[in-house]
Amino acid sequence: MKSLQEIAAHAQARKVKTRIAVAVAEDSNTMGALCRAAQEGFVFPILIGTKQRILSLLETAALPSEAYQIIDIPDQDAATKAAVKLVKTGQADVLMKGLVSTDKFLREVLNKQRGLLPPNVVMSYTCALELPKYHKLLLISDTAVLPYPDLNQKIAMVNYSVKMAHKLGIKEPKVALISATEKVTEGMPNTIDSALISKMAERGQIKGCIIDGPLDVFLACDPPSVQIKGVPTPIAGDADILIFPNLETANAFYKGLMLFAEGELAGLIQGTEKPVIVMSRSESEKSKYYCLALSCLMTEVR
Amino acid sequence: MKSLQEIAAHAQARKVKTRIAVAVAEDSNTMGALCRAAQEGFVFPILIGTKQRILSLLETAALPSEAYQIIDIPDQDAATKAAVKLVKTGQADVLMKGLVSTDKFLREVLNKQRGLLPPNVVMSYTCALELPKYHKLLLISDTAVLPYPDLNQKIAMVNYSVKMAHKLGIKEPKVALISATEKVTEGMPNTIDSALISKMAERGQIKGCIIDGPLDVFLACDPPSVQIKGVPTPIAGDADILIFPNLETANAFYKGLMLFAEGELAGLIQGTEKPVIVMSRSESEKSKYYCLALSCLMTEVR
Repeated sequence: MKSLQEIAAHAQARKVKTRIAVAVAEDSNTMGALCRAAQEGFVFPILIGTKQRILSLLETAALPSEAYQIIDIPDQDAATKAAVKLVKTGQADVLMKGLVSTDKFLREVLNKQRGLLPPNVVMSYTCALELPKYHKLLLISDTAVLPYPDLNQKIAMVNYSVKMAHKLGIKEPKVALISATEKVTEGMPNTIDSALISKMAERGQIKGCIIDGPLDVFLACDPPSVQIKGVPTPIAGDADILIFPNLETANAFYKGLMLFAEGELAGLIQGTEKPVIVMSRSESEKSKYYCLALSCLMTEVR
Repeated sequence: MKSLQEIAAHAQARKVKTRIAVAVAEDSNTMGALCRAAQEGFVFPILIGTKQRILSLLETAALPSEAYQIIDIPDQDAATKAAVKLVKTGQADVLMKGLVSTDKFLREVLNKQRGLLPPNVVMSYTCALELPKYHKLLLISDTAVLPYPDLNQKIAMVNYSVKMAHKLGIKEPKVALISATEKVTEGMPNTIDSALISKMAERGQIKGCIIDGPLDVFLACDPPSVQIKGVPTPIAGDADILIFPNLETANAFYKGLMLFAEGELAGLIQGTEKPVIVMSRSESEKSKYYCLALSCLMTEVR
């Protein structure tokens, strides 16, 4: 799959309704995305929140009443708890954030008793970024969760992103470990982590991908730059996955491209027992729709 | 000035030939940019390096022999020393890197006796980035020199960029201190620096600009995001200058936009007695030409 549209088409073609538990569902963008995906037949929304508000948002969508379920819990904390519980107990396949704040939502996801993150598992975030000027999707991590990942967290970021690439049908994704330079230098500790991860992959400690770093964005995504600089790298300007040194870098990178390069994206929390969709309120309906399609693919057993 | 082309037009209109000392000039991109700027009448190149190679590169340019000077010094170290000396002694106005490695070149610029950086002055880098989808130039810092700037270095980055904005005719540039979030949190030390710098500006400790941070790229450059998020900031999605938390972030940001958003840029070393142009070999002739135009403007006394 080389585009978000292909991901959505694949989700539709599966003819499986993934059950989405939505915490505090009364948010118009979120409801818009859910209604579209439900109409296209690939999700079954379980809408938890204030019933009256949810119903009024449903009015415009003309979704048949058997195509969704509403659970009336007006209190935000209680609604979030209920949504997490549905996923935890196998009554829903995917958890999605609605109008509740990200902090409150994640606190429940991370709760040691009731939450969705197994003990000692790294939680991270991977996005699929579509750019009109790149010939395929770019999976990027971590734009949202880990501020300053250490070596082990970076390895987890690699593994999660590789797993997502496999689900998208990319058998051996090319992973670029991004820095400002391709040189390994003590002055930039991230280049050291990148060198270590590259070597670990060479030793078979990371599997299912071709991985190299440190590399800058040019060497990762632009074949002419690789030629001019003469850097021998198996990524060769054809990266499928970019692993960033820290959240600030990943965040500025994707936001710049959303604004100025007509970027579009879908992202998911990584490490949880089931897919979790956490999009900010300002994110578009389209992005949320693509998140739903992506989450359906990630629930697929292959 | 809202575009690199306007900067070039302004440099041409001044009718002043800025003297450019070029260290190891025998590089085709560099020579191409110099010949174009010389033909347009705004630079006088002093080409230091291997005379025969320089002459053969000049053949295609058809530049009259009175429009440049060649100093035949084949040894790279000696040529670089000579170029720096010309600028240091006022016989040239701008220093430019040619085929010599950036390391060697900067070592000479930074030399305590012979170099161009006054004692206790922060050396940094500011770029003017032009994006078809943004309504004006974005000045960004630091894409090249300071890996992890501390508070004082960030303040220097602000002051250098503000000075460049003034030279470009922007009276009160809007400076956004970029982070992944607009929230001040101890978990992300850069947000603390940003808050401190904002407050310092409020107290008159930084002048000549409107400054705010922490802000993410959306709040800095996209008015609708400011509206949706309801964050009260004088930058209001209309930033002239972006100050990044570290080199990795600035570097990935601009390289992504060069590749995928048809970005074009010109940059200069900041802090030196005279403008210094350090472009990598892979940079285009056009970028080097715009650097020359920008350096001419920076030598202007107002």
